[in-house]
Amino acid sequence: MGDRGGAGGSRRRRAGSRVSVQGGGGPSVAEEEVRDLTSAPDVGAGGDAPTPNKDGHVDVGSGHWELRCHRLQDSLFSSDSGFSNYRGILNWCVVMLILSNTRLFLENLIKYGILVDPIQVVSLFLKDPYSWPAPCLVIASNIFSVAAFQIEKRLAVGAITEQVGLLLHVANLATILCFPAAVALLVESITPVGSVLALASYSIIFLKLFSYRHVNLWCRQCRVKAKAGKVSGAAVQHTVSYPDNLTYRDLYYFIFAPTLCYELNFPRSPRIRKRFLLRRVLEMVRFGPSGVWMVPTIQNSMKPFKDMDYSRIIERLLKLAVPNHLIWLIFFYWLFHSCLNVVAELMQFGDREFYRDWWNAESVIYFWQNWNIPVHKWCSRHFYKPLLRRGTNRWVARTGVFLASAFFHEYLVSIPLRMFRLWAFTAMMAQIPLAWIVGRFFQGNYGNAAVWMTLIIGQPVAVLMYVHDYYVLNYEAPTVGGA
Amino acid sequence: MGDRGGAGGSRRRRAGSRVSVQGGGGPSVAEEEVRDLTSAPDVGAGGDAPTPNKDGHVDVGSGHWELRCHRLQDSLFSSDSGFSNYRGILNWCVVMLILSNTRLFLENLIKYGILVDPIQVVSLFLKDPYSWPAPCLVIASNIFSVAAFQIEKRLAVGAITEQVGLLLHVANLATILCFPAAVALLVESITPVGSVLALASYSIIFLKLFSYRHVNLWCRQCRVKAKAGKVSGAAVQHTVSYPDNLTYRDLYYFIFAPTLCYELNFPRSPRIRKRFLLRRVLEMVRFGPSGVWMVPTIQNSMKPFKDMDYSRIIERLLKLAVPNHLIWLIFFYWLFHSCLNVVAELMQFGDREFYRDWWNAESVIYFWQNWNIPVHKWCSRHFYKPLLRRGTNRWVARTGVFLASAFFHEYLVSIPLRMFRLWAFTAMMAQIPLAWIVGRFFQGNYGNAAVWMTLIIGQPVAVLMYVHDYYVLNYEAPTVGGA
Repeated sequence: MGDRGGAGGSRRRRAGSRVSVQGGGGPSVAEEEVRDLTSAPDVGAGGDAPTPNKDGHVDVGSGHWELRCHRLQDSLFSSDSGFSNYRGILNWCVVMLILSNTRLFLENLIKYGILVDPIQVVSLFLKDPYSWPAPCLVIASNIFSVAAFQIEKRLAVGAITEQVGLLLHVANLATILCFPAAVALLVESITPVGSVLALASYSIIFLKLFSYRHVNLWCRQCRVKAKAGKVSGAAVQHTVSYPDNLTYRDLYYFIFAPTLCYELNFPRSPRIRKRFLLRRVLEMVRFGPSGVWMVPTIQNSMKPFKDMDYSRIIERLLKLAVPNHLIWLIFFYWLFHSCLNVVAELMQFGDREFYRDWWNAESVIYFWQNWNIPVHKWCSRHFYKPLLRRGTNRWVARTGVFLASAFFHEYLVSIPLRMFRLWAFTAMMAQIPLAWIVGRFFQGNYGNAAVWMTLIIGQPVAVLMYVHDYYVLNYEAPTVGGA
Repeated sequence: MGDRGGAGGSRRRRAGSRVSVQGGGGPSVAEEEVRDLTSAPDVGAGGDAPTPNKDGHVDVGSGHWELRCHRLQDSLFSSDSGFSNYRGILNWCVVMLILSNTRLFLENLIKYGILVDPIQVVSLFLKDPYSWPAPCLVIASNIFSVAAFQIEKRLAVGAITEQVGLLLHVANLATILCFPAAVALLVESITPVGSVLALASYSIIFLKLFSYRHVNLWCRQCRVKAKAGKVSGAAVQHTVSYPDNLTYRDLYYFIFAPTLCYELNFPRSPRIRKRFLLRRVLEMVRFGPSGVWMVPTIQNSMKPFKDMDYSRIIERLLKLAVPNHLIWLIFFYWLFHSCLNVVAELMQFGDREFYRDWWNAESVIYFWQNWNIPVHKWCSRHFYKPLLRRGTNRWVARTGVFLASAFFHEYLVSIPLRMFRLWAFTAMMAQIPLAWIVGRFFQGNYGNAAVWMTLIIGQPVAVLMYVHDYYVLNYEAPTVGGA
């Protein structure tokens, strides 16, 4: 029963730096007690309390009496307290998620048996079992990587000029975006899910090869400068310098590494931690299908909006917002923590910063800068900063980033669904005025709550628009024709 | 798009002391960018990365190129990262709670109209509108406070000896516990809810007067010592010393103050913060009835266990555990943050530490020491430490505290329900072996998850046992007789 969080603790909290160090209960508690008993009576926190530190003449020789046991301090939930260690709340969320998932799983199992039909799952990926367009597309993407590599190889030895190299790279990158889009639109046997996965791989390869070309260009520029100036010193051991990095091994390490930014010498972790890997793999397996259990909830309540009045639409939207948001959160954890860490651990890739503390975001901009670090890093390094260096205005450059991001969102949604509605594009572009509004009117915890609200409400609106239109387009039309 | 959380940020995080300071987006982001551009290229975090800091000879004069953009670091969710600022997750919980409450409220309003019947609410507190036993009991409690005050007054001037004073105090305190229990058991017109509230007030007054007597005793002992030794110095201004504190004003300030531990000079806050008060009052009003909306969920699924097989009971229990847990969390926030802060703000009571960071508890003991600070402080100051000073073994003293706590839990549940089942008592006493098991087998985040699990699962088991038995006793028996 040690008096934890006494004066020292309170001051530590105020600085927001209280690290939770209590161990298994027993020893540390006992230690606290000993300290407590020896330092009693408690005389209030020196710096915190405006009341005098002495109790007047009564206090003389009050060996073991605790005459004072209160001090001036704020509750932890009050923002004035500066306390921010809520690690336990995160654990609570995980426990609640697992519990409700387990219950839902049990209930569904009792009521319906196993819900997931394997044939149905396969049919998400395959329409015609003898035609596998999506995997073929993914395999074909190697051609473009090799092409970029060969261009760089020739540029390095000066076999082609920079202008020709640029032209070839532009042609290569443009093909990377157009070729799969054309296939997805023209080949009938491709499914929307397969199409999304193929287009996502091509987008990733596009970003990676863009970075590959950019960094190699920088290296050549460095080399020219170094030659023009003094002769450079010997290479530091264990690091690769420019022309030596152009190997297939290096290229394919980069292609599979969980990053979009090329670097000659990636930081490497010293070894593969087997327990860490095992836990992440278990999470991958555990959380992967948990989203599936929520699909029936969404499916059940999917009806065309035209049959509903506005109050019903709002009620429906609120009802769908929460499971949709939970699926997104699980997906985030699954992809950005479990999957990317598994890949990184297997490849001994050292930089595990795949996300930052976007959950504390007090502005929309902070959220976009921190939730998806690989993409943010790429945008910042290869798009935003080069634009700034050319003297572009900051807000123009930022709008450019959002435009590019909006383009890719639309690209990944419209082409697989074969529906051009521009809602993903609009949603992304709406972030700029939204950022201004939230930044203008909400501060601190209210700003954070506003960011959460836009996530919980805004995202499902966009998703539902597509799902709704896709449903109407594919399942309603024949019925209307037949009626 | 400033590269937030670079080397400095990462190191700050590692120390667990990252205070979230981003403001309204615009200015601070712009500032970051400027710093970023001037300090580019990024050369890796000096202390963190074992890779060399130089890029070899290619790096010579690489003015504005970011050749390096990765560094060796862990993901934030990994416990190795030491990151613990999840304030945003707390906000998320609040937003989700408000959203789902609003939706539930809307849905109920659409389906059933206003569910809460005012007559029904009143009938929780009153059985017979002409007999108000619970409020009478609460008002009568003043007698005991005044009695304790008069005893102290006489002890201070030496009109009665310490032995007589002790005897009178014991008689007074014993009556405080027995009198309302007798009334609650004998008077027919008292309702369970009224009875709980009355007994709770008496328990609080019991603890307060116990502390009042204890502290005044300490003061007298100090006075004796001070007289025996040297003559004490003049009293420091603005503080009250021993015999002067025995006034009705002081007594009633203590009776209404949100603490159980008496002190001669409570720390006072300088002024009543009106905005703070308003927000807490709004929370009080907002969260108070929100629990009520979950009651139908619980009521609907309340059936006698004897009609069910074991798998059904487990499924039912899991289904009830989550709303029960949420009600408890809302109740905790409502009572310990909103209500006690309102009372404290109105009385300018300075010490707002009504709870500590129990949500991070990694052991059961830590949870019990931190979730209810007024009671914990009382137990530690007036029960546990005095026992230790008399040479009692630490584990015996700790068991004593749990015994006392178990007694009060049982007292507050059994007497109002007029059902003596000893389940609250058993649940409290089960905490000691539970603490041992959790401390022995679970560490760190797993310990925290184990504490959450015992809260989510353990508590509703105890509550449901009482509710179930009460239901069977009061609603089943007549039906069986009539059938």
